[in-house]
Amino acid sequence: MSLLLSISGWNVADWAERFRALDPGRTIQIAGEPGTDPALAEYGVAWKPAAGIFTTSPNLKAIFSLGAGVDAILKDKTLPDVPVVRIIDADLTQRMTEWVTLQVLLHHRQQRRLDAAQQRREWLSLPQGAASEVRVGILGLGALGKDSAEVLSRLGFQVAGWSRSPKSIPGIESFSGADGLRAFLARTEILVCLLPLTTDTTGILNYDLFTGLARDGRFGAPVVINAGRGGHQVEADILRALDDGTLSAVSLDVFETEPLPVENPLWGHPGVTLSPHSAADSEPEPMCRNIMGQIAAFERGEPLRNVVDRNAGY
Amino acid sequence: MSLLLSISGWNVADWAERFRALDPGRTIQIAGEPGTDPALAEYGVAWKPAAGIFTTSPNLKAIFSLGAGVDAILKDKTLPDVPVVRIIDADLTQRMTEWVTLQVLLHHRQQRRLDAAQQRREWLSLPQGAASEVRVGILGLGALGKDSAEVLSRLGFQVAGWSRSPKSIPGIESFSGADGLRAFLARTEILVCLLPLTTDTTGILNYDLFTGLARDGRFGAPVVINAGRGGHQVEADILRALDDGTLSAVSLDVFETEPLPVENPLWGHPGVTLSPHSAADSEPEPMCRNIMGQIAAFERGEPLRNVVDRNAGY
Repeated sequence: MSLLLSISGWNVADWAERFRALDPGRTIQIAGEPGTDPALAEYGVAWKPAAGIFTTSPNLKAIFSLGAGVDAILKDKTLPDVPVVRIIDADLTQRMTEWVTLQVLLHHRQQRRLDAAQQRREWLSLPQGAASEVRVGILGLGALGKDSAEVLSRLGFQVAGWSRSPKSIPGIESFSGADGLRAFLARTEILVCLLPLTTDTTGILNYDLFTGLARDGRFGAPVVINAGRGGHQVEADILRALDDGTLSAVSLDVFETEPLPVENPLWGHPGVTLSPHSAADSEPEPMCRNIMGQIAAFERGEPLRNVVDRNAGY
Repeated sequence: MSLLLSISGWNVADWAERFRALDPGRTIQIAGEPGTDPALAEYGVAWKPAAGIFTTSPNLKAIFSLGAGVDAILKDKTLPDVPVVRIIDADLTQRMTEWVTLQVLLHHRQQRRLDAAQQRREWLSLPQGAASEVRVGILGLGALGKDSAEVLSRLGFQVAGWSRSPKSIPGIESFSGADGLRAFLARTEILVCLLPLTTDTTGILNYDLFTGLARDGRFGAPVVINAGRGGHQVEADILRALDDGTLSAVSLDVFETEPLPVENPLWGHPGVTLSPHSAADSEPEPMCRNIMGQIAAFERGEPLRNVVDRNAGY
């Protein structure tokens, strides 16, 4: 039995070491290394894999994605017809909820205005509404969206979510489908994107969508927070919306091009808080344990968890 | 029946209007205004009241404090021997939890380092631990401390609390008394102060206490967050601890002197995030409803809620 790792952007040797440490009896191969024989591979482990990498692995039974987003794997048109498994790890979900909660509170509590006042040494009294007066809307109600929604609701925000198919989460107003999107946006002052990247959701964060958000709330103009994928956002539209007052501020963890080029105006815009695609890094240890545990269960005859629907794209 | 308002720092006329609107049948007087007769007063409503203000009100039955902290009321040695009621309002608790959660996440997620990297246009990858690796300790487990503890625990932090007398809150490790303080500090990387200000707690946030905090965590040096009272902190000790690495950062909402004087070095210190005593402003509407509701219940023979223990000071 053999694992074939195709991982870019991270240190693949480190990942291989961790898999080996967890189960020394298995053969762990790194794609593209001398001596690697893809024909042996029964399971693939992928993060931004090289295109065509699994075409020479006729014995492949499943591919595991090292993250909740599988867009980089599915875009490979030569991908063999085996189950693709999204690793939905409690650790990753918790990290994403930390980041989303921080960004929502940072805007809600006007931290950037307080930062500027501190620099001026100004004791600045700002009118401050309660969370219960603020309507947060979460695009995407999967494991990540649900957890963020629950914490924000516990903090007192009015939280709604939108998803392709209807969801039922206690305390969270739920909208779904293309028909529900307009009503969802119209009641949303702080929009959080935690969608999977699919053909339907590519470019969804555009100027037209921004104009549909609620403008009658405490913020004057709404706030957009994106921790999905850079492909969800049209950055020219974000800049236009910030400059003409359609949006008051954004928090972005992802970008059309990563790393964000140094000349990109998002870096220096006063309405932008950004982080370097670090909202919810995949921690190697829990990921590796999850994958090895799933393989062991699968080989005992149990089903794989969180298998991707290739038509839906997530 | 008459209410006597002694309120400084806020617009007392606004408060009087709100009380009148809620119950036009009551006499609402403002201390110190022409025509006000303190002898009529049956209930006092106070926020930083003038000293001696209630000595000429022989019919006084109770004094309501417009906030959770009653230190400014109790320090008046001429205060009549009537119940002093702390208003513990759900709105105020929620606002405090917002602020505490924001500050804890801001330090945990290294937001200030990311802010600086954004200014330099640097795509900065930082090692980032999970909340579950970080030990938060809350000084004070009253209504405010308990609520913050619960939200931080939900976010995954290891949360403990310390209080004068033992408390039991599910999921929160509890320490108490002078004996428990040392052990509480020794396991705490992020310290949050939500104590009442009493003779026992004045100056508790001092250099000696800072040296007792955990230094083996992810932060290298611990973080202190104070949303109690300025009287809890020794600002010279905070600056010394930041400068010699005993603390890595602080968030302060309260100060020894408020407004914080423009020449105070806390304004410009890179390790300091400050806000102008705005963590949990008392919103007039819910406060007024709470007080009028309590008076109506008291006059039906029901007990007052959250009466201050004058010996304990809260």
